[in-house]
Amino acid sequence: MVRKNELRDGETAIAAPPPNDAGLVFIGRIHTPWQDRLTCPRQGRQDGPTCRIEVFEPWVAALDGITEYRHIEVLYWLHLSRRDIVRQSPRNDGVARGAFSLRTPVRPNPIGTQLVALLRVEGANVFVRGLDCLDGTPLIDLKPDRTLFKPLAPAQAGDFQVGEA
Amino acid sequence: MVRKNELRDGETAIAAPPPNDAGLVFIGRIHTPWQDRLTCPRQGRQDGPTCRIEVFEPWVAALDGITEYRHIEVLYWLHLSRRDIVRQSPRNDGVARGAFSLRTPVRPNPIGTQLVALLRVEGANVFVRGLDCLDGTPLIDLKPDRTLFKPLAPAQAGDFQVGEA
Repeated sequence: MVRKNELRDGETAIAAPPPNDAGLVFIGRIHTPWQDRLTCPRQGRQDGPTCRIEVFEPWVAALDGITEYRHIEVLYWLHLSRRDIVRQSPRNDGVARGAFSLRTPVRPNPIGTQLVALLRVEGANVFVRGLDCLDGTPLIDLKPDRTLFKPLAPAQAGDFQVGEA
Repeated sequence: MVRKNELRDGETAIAAPPPNDAGLVFIGRIHTPWQDRLTCPRQGRQDGPTCRIEVFEPWVAALDGITEYRHIEVLYWLHLSRRDIVRQSPRNDGVARGAFSLRTPVRPNPIGTQLVALLRVEGANVFVRGLDCLDGTPLIDLKPDRTLFKPLAPAQAGDFQVGEA
């Protein structure tokens, strides 16, 4: 069963400082078939349903050129998630492990990242497959898949720097 | 040349709403060899220098189990970046394209994501290779590489849902 807001046996909640080190702006909204956390996929799949990412003004111009990429990375805000559980029990069986070793939505900064297949862009709407988030999820960012993107700007010294073997 | 804060020929800056839809908490600090944006790599490399990700309390317990993964995803806050340029000219040649078709640090929500090789964990410190950010960059999140992670929680209906061919 997906977590609603309960703390489970074996889990550890912390008293976290207020989250005001930096502020996010929601730049769009994601439309998916999933209205409820009880039916949402655990993981997106590339043959999953087509979802629509609606980009708000004044950011629509930032989509220019995105269709050069077959795959893009999507960052979104997991707006229903608790943020204070550092050790979690995914199976609800009393066995807990750290949040950073899980891709749980319950995280100190509840940001989801997903790599999706880009189908097409129509105006302010980007159609993709591979998402796993709730309908209405706030959009934070879109980027080209890192494995497909080659920087256009000139290289810098750090690009050639390697470490010890 | 890397951008400092200038607006270049052909670029478009917008008047964005204040970024107060959600708040982030900085959960750590990233230590790298790069003190200046003029030497920072454009892209991390898996044979790059070892970098140290320092996790702050009260989040250190969330690292438990992370060493099961050879690769992890790192999210960080690009604290020196402008956020208002929707069309950018990476080569500074008058040719501009959308920010969402670039992996530029200049974005409405300046969050960097990188997939890195996990070397070891010592207490609150995670040693990795493959980063490309400035020394002192604020940490936002750590997650297992999505291609290595298998959910521990039971599957839900959405996991089996596919779209039209």
